[in-house]
Amino acid sequence: MPFLDRQRFARIVSPSDPDRAAPGFRLAYHATITAGLAAMFADTWPGLPPMVDHAMMWTTIVAWGVLVLEFALRLWVAPSARHADSVSDVRMRVHYITGPRGFIDFLAVLALPTGWVFGTEHTDANLFCILWSLKLFRYSTGLTVLLSVIRNERTALLSVLTTFAVVLLLSSTLAYIFEREGQPDTFGSIPSAMWWAIVTLTTTGYGDATPATLWGRSLAGIVMVCGLAVFALMTGILANGFAQELRRRDFLRTWDLVARVPYFRDVGAAVIAEVVRMLRPQEVRPNTILFRRGETGQAMYFIVSGEIEMGLRPRPIRLSDGNFFGEMALISGSDRSATATATRRTLLLSLDVADFRDLAARRPELLKAIHEEAEKRRLINAGAMAAAAPKD
Amino acid sequence: MPFLDRQRFARIVSPSDPDRAAPGFRLAYHATITAGLAAMFADTWPGLPPMVDHAMMWTTIVAWGVLVLEFALRLWVAPSARHADSVSDVRMRVHYITGPRGFIDFLAVLALPTGWVFGTEHTDANLFCILWSLKLFRYSTGLTVLLSVIRNERTALLSVLTTFAVVLLLSSTLAYIFEREGQPDTFGSIPSAMWWAIVTLTTTGYGDATPATLWGRSLAGIVMVCGLAVFALMTGILANGFAQELRRRDFLRTWDLVARVPYFRDVGAAVIAEVVRMLRPQEVRPNTILFRRGETGQAMYFIVSGEIEMGLRPRPIRLSDGNFFGEMALISGSDRSATATATRRTLLLSLDVADFRDLAARRPELLKAIHEEAEKRRLINAGAMAAAAPKD
Amino acid sequence: MPFLDRQRFARIVSPSDPDRAAPGFRLAYHATITAGLAAMFADTWPGLPPMVDHAMMWTTIVAWGVLVLEFALRLWVAPSARHADSVSDVRMRVHYITGPRGFIDFLAVLALPTGWVFGTEHTDANLFCILWSLKLFRYSTGLTVLLSVIRNERTALLSVLTTFAVVLLLSSTLAYIFEREGQPDTFGSIPSAMWWAIVTLTTTGYGDATPATLWGRSLAGIVMVCGLAVFALMTGILANGFAQELRRRDFLRTWDLVARVPYFRDVGAAVIAEVVRMLRPQEVRPNTILFRRGETGQAMYFIVSGEIEMGLRPRPIRLSDGNFFGEMALISGSDRSATATATRRTLLLSLDVADFRDLAARRPELLKAIHEEAEKRRLINAGAMAAAAPKD
Amino acid sequence: MPFLDRQRFARIVSPSDPDRAAPGFRLAYHATITAGLAAMFADTWPGLPPMVDHAMMWTTIVAWGVLVLEFALRLWVAPSARHADSVSDVRMRVHYITGPRGFIDFLAVLALPTGWVFGTEHTDANLFCILWSLKLFRYSTGLTVLLSVIRNERTALLSVLTTFAVVLLLSSTLAYIFEREGQPDTFGSIPSAMWWAIVTLTTTGYGDATPATLWGRSLAGIVMVCGLAVFALMTGILANGFAQELRRRDFLRTWDLVARVPYFRDVGAAVIAEVVRMLRPQEVRPNTILFRRGETGQAMYFIVSGEIEMGLRPRPIRLSDGNFFGEMALISGSDRSATATATRRTLLLSLDVADFRDLAARRPELLKAIHEEAEKRRLINAGAMAAAAPKD
Repeated sequence: MPFLDRQRFARIVSPSDPDRAAPGFRLAYHATITAGLAAMFADTWPGLPPMVDHAMMWTTIVAWGVLVLEFALRLWVAPSARHADSVSDVRMRVHYITGPRGFIDFLAVLALPTGWVFGTEHTDANLFCILWSLKLFRYSTGLTVLLSVIRNERTALLSVLTTFAVVLLLSSTLAYIFEREGQPDTFGSIPSAMWWAIVTLTTTGYGDATPATLWGRSLAGIVMVCGLAVFALMTGILANGFAQELRRRDFLRTWDLVARVPYFRDVGAAVIAEVVRMLRPQEVRPNTILFRRGETGQAMYFIVSGEIEMGLRPRPIRLSDGNFFGEMALISGSDRSATATATRRTLLLSLDVADFRDLAARRPELLKAIHEEAEKRRLINAGAMAAAAPKD
Repeated sequence: MPFLDRQRFARIVSPSDPDRAAPGFRLAYHATITAGLAAMFADTWPGLPPMVDHAMMWTTIVAWGVLVLEFALRLWVAPSARHADSVSDVRMRVHYITGPRGFIDFLAVLALPTGWVFGTEHTDANLFCILWSLKLFRYSTGLTVLLSVIRNERTALLSVLTTFAVVLLLSSTLAYIFEREGQPDTFGSIPSAMWWAIVTLTTTGYGDATPATLWGRSLAGIVMVCGLAVFALMTGILANGFAQELRRRDFLRTWDLVARVPYFRDVGAAVIAEVVRMLRPQEVRPNTILFRRGETGQAMYFIVSGEIEMGLRPRPIRLSDGNFFGEMALISGSDRSATATATRRTLLLSLDVADFRDLAARRPELLKAIHEEAEKRRLINAGAMAAAAPKD
Repeated sequence: MPFLDRQRFARIVSPSDPDRAAPGFRLAYHATITAGLAAMFADTWPGLPPMVDHAMMWTTIVAWGVLVLEFALRLWVAPSARHADSVSDVRMRVHYITGPRGFIDFLAVLALPTGWVFGTEHTDANLFCILWSLKLFRYSTGLTVLLSVIRNERTALLSVLTTFAVVLLLSSTLAYIFEREGQPDTFGSIPSAMWWAIVTLTTTGYGDATPATLWGRSLAGIVMVCGLAVFALMTGILANGFAQELRRRDFLRTWDLVARVPYFRDVGAAVIAEVVRMLRPQEVRPNTILFRRGETGQAMYFIVSGEIEMGLRPRPIRLSDGNFFGEMALISGSDRSATATATRRTLLLSLDVADFRDLAARRPELLKAIHEEAEKRRLINAGAMAAAAPKD
Repeated sequence: MPFLDRQRFARIVSPSDPDRAAPGFRLAYHATITAGLAAMFADTWPGLPPMVDHAMMWTTIVAWGVLVLEFALRLWVAPSARHADSVSDVRMRVHYITGPRGFIDFLAVLALPTGWVFGTEHTDANLFCILWSLKLFRYSTGLTVLLSVIRNERTALLSVLTTFAVVLLLSSTLAYIFEREGQPDTFGSIPSAMWWAIVTLTTTGYGDATPATLWGRSLAGIVMVCGLAVFALMTGILANGFAQELRRRDFLRTWDLVARVPYFRDVGAAVIAEVVRMLRPQEVRPNTILFRRGETGQAMYFIVSGEIEMGLRPRPIRLSDGNFFGEMALISGSDRSATATATRRTLLLSLDVADFRDLAARRPELLKAIHEEAEKRRLINAGAMAAAAPKD
């Protein structure tokens, strides 16, 4: 079934769909890029023995080959992407290549041939492979957050950069005036003085150009403190923007997961909006132990999808989609009475003990519902066990 | 109609009134300043060929000419400013020149002539043009925010600067005591040692003066850590102040826009105060595509002014001031059913999906009102389309 | 009346009681310390002409004399401090000297004589005067905030410093191992390597010791990033702590002032707790113009103490303790109808337009009360003016 | 009673159980590690006189002996840890050694013997003792917070590090292209250029490699600003994460303590959740003076465990577990009427005056309950005093 294969491969290479082979693919992906770049970098080292030189060159070529294959694969599976029902395969492929990620993939493939055409030496030819480094962003969800933050805060950031520029222009002109006589080599023109100014304003301080006069040094002191202040402002803006954007994304992601847990369906929308801020999504691999018998309770969990085995006696019970567990230790304050293990890849929502107490205090009806659900579940389990017992 | 022209020019040069020619004016404004400053800077480079030297000199002079014209223009339009009804033209012009921005414009015009009077060489004469860099702040709304923050947090900032000063004084005295014997050149007096201290306290670290004794180095380690701590405090103060001030300004700006959307008139003041914090003003150029058919819904929009075309079938509909759109995908969770494009410069308020859900959960009546409005709009559109259909 | 004089002087030197002569005293205080320290610093410059040397020396001695007088003055007025009713004068003076500020004053007085006893040269003798720099903290309210923050966050800060120390120890040992053979001078022992490590970890980077081997440089890269991370944590802790502490202090200070405004007495404690967070205390000098006729309304004001003149026509009215003003422009959205000027030193609480709208939306009863009060005031004023008119 | 001894020792070495001898033990613990590391470090100094060399060597050996003893002690008391009831002694000891802290203790013991086996010189042999530095983390509660923060924010941090890496790769390749001809020594290969790039991106700026061409310097300027931006993002992420995690931990710890104060039992869970955020746990040593008669009231206190003596007249009264005090000055705004001293190690919850007022305004019933409790207590005290009086 070639069609099914394409669907499968589409899931493997996608950043969001969790296929069993996806982690392996990603490892290979990052290893190829890293190896290719490392070889390309090492190859520029002068005086390498010819054998090492060749090994490096071939590593780069092999890495390029793998990236060509990867590009072909992505081109092939492009029609399997979401919302692709009514659009032709060719249009979906064009859409992939013209998108930001597809374009980087395309450039990465072109890098080496372009280098061969333009470069005179093979080390120079390889330099175009630096474009591969952009592929490292593919699975980094944070970059989109970063770009959103920069877009949201662009007015404030632009103001800080304007201030930065004006301080830079003023200080390099003043440094030129104060220092040009004593040090004509490093402060002999404003562009030269500007090099000093930027090195000082960012508090980098190479030391290849330092003022020597009293006025120049006083100016330098003020420039340094301005540099710290400008940087402090930038930190403040980016830190705030980042925190807001992350909160917004977490809210959305958790909301989607909460909607899949039946327990939350009946608690009313107002409570959900409150609960969503407290729940934290968590994905665990098979055989992960969430907590052990005898530990202190740190959180309770809701199962979005997957299966958890509670190591109860006489026989373990298994909980799956929509169930919750771990609430006993939080309610009673006693230690965990059983060990909880994921039997397969499981998606959970965890509710921290601090938030649990806070929530239980402000919304006692939630605690009651948890009690009732837990009671019901225990009865069902007891019945199942009673039914299962005679068979043994 | 010369009077109308003046009004038009007043709008073009103003930072807030959006005239069609305003972006072009601003581009020319910033280009002139940048070119003038760049030429002035390049001109200080020693040993330029006479032709380049002349070109640079003339670029500066032309830029100055443009700034003189700009100053004249602003002086001419000054009486068209707001609240100018009852005041004479001359008073408004004096008011403009004595204000912070007008004064900078005035200084910028005077810079070159002053230089010619005092400077011996033409490169030195041009140095006064560095005052032009202050004109970069004119359209930077952030500078006023920056100044507000510094004014609001002045007590805290002053404390940090006092701490900075005391650490600086103490450390330079101690460094002088520890290092003066070993390095009489760099630590031979307290003012010299102070140069080392400020370079170290700001963690710039030029390396032109470094302690060599055990005591001196231990002191340097403490000074560096103090520097980081002082800087951390400054970051904290400015970051907090900036966040508060931006929030305050956003609140005011959004409130003014919300008041112009009829839908919000009936929801009650208490809800508005809550909604204002969630809405984000957004200005889009003509032909901007806000979202495409088939995309996931990220936000809904309220039109403050302008026009949006929804690419519905069989024929697109146009929405204008006071309407809202994009709510369908947020309510149903389905994909966008139509592409939304701005037909002209449009001012929108966007409500993010995260905030939409949060709001819908806590204020179900708002969601209901949106439903009703949407239904009504659909009926009107259906009627309009039915009426329009026979004509085709 | 010598007793009254002492009370007066006590008010002048105190950081909180506002006496008319207090600003002058503070200026003289800071000028003396600055001049004394500057002279002491300049005096260490080698090869000064004897005349300058003498001038510097005498400046230091005169500054010391002033500080001795100041100490005597403070000792004299110590019994006039608060809570001093039942305690003897001698005990209050001992209390002053043993307190942190009194002790610094005492040390500052002792500094010069101690130097004369121990120092061989007069420049060395003066070095003890560096203790005067601690007196700069006296009127800096922020230092107590700083100390509170450090005390509140000491656990977290200690953890960061421990991490800092462990990274420092590990990296200097590793740098010693990697670099000792190539650079025995700078990395020949762990203490030497530790100098490199602290210069790198704080990202100061003098450049007097830099690793040359591949391992050493890789280590350096990691150390630099760790340095940034450690510093980021410190920034986070201090920034949060500072923000909390400032908010707490503002709350307390504003609460005390709100209690003195009659309008707030009847609005209920729950509303006050909310309002206190929005009001900002503001102290203005005589003849300060708060806003001008025709400006946009940015805030309304409550007078805690002092007097404000509203430039109304036909004749200005004067408002004093407990009144409020500036609410008209906020309610109607129109421009200021009169100019407000402080006739003497006035303490105000300002309510920002953003907060005013927010508050008016959530607490309509407050707005109503403001309306009624304003109406009442206007009637009284009208009556007063009617009564005053015939006299003209 | 050897069994009792073991329990006692278990309490002494534990980070949480407060035994009288615990502070002494911790001091000795940290002193041993510091002395051992200092001796090991000093020993690497070349050309030490043999006697000093010997002293250092022996200090290290003695410190090692103490750490061996400490390890043996911890191994011995391991079975006394919590939840150890049903598990054999051997299993508890294995559990201790395989845990993170036990493993570090084990490595610390092995460090010196391992060094003797592998090292040729005794200074090299001692280098393994650097592992002792990890033992400094044992009593640092913040490290676990730090690790939680890094775990919680790992996605965001990874994005920042990816951005950091891509900027590093791009800038070193570009610097290599721009500068390789002019400076073949420092920019002759990409790995060499990468050294420059990381030194610049972290704004360390050693100055051993600086670009000299116009393009190289422009690149350097951009790299420095990127470095500040990357760092600003890291600061933002870590600062936010740290604040959240600390708040969560404080909430949990305070909740446990609040549960032990009877006064809070009747106020209802919803109020407790609110109060917990305002209370601050505080542990005071015997004879600590919390406040003195005549001071301004800054906080009220609830006693979790211990005893406080109020210096009332005619005779002091003693308050113990569950009582509260210091509320009078907050309610009336008057000064403290009595001095409060801890008679033994006392655990308190303090409620700041700002929070007290805020709480009293929003929850008047709490204030009323405090009034009633205070009244009741005063009556009982009066009765006790009346009963005690005749005895005198």
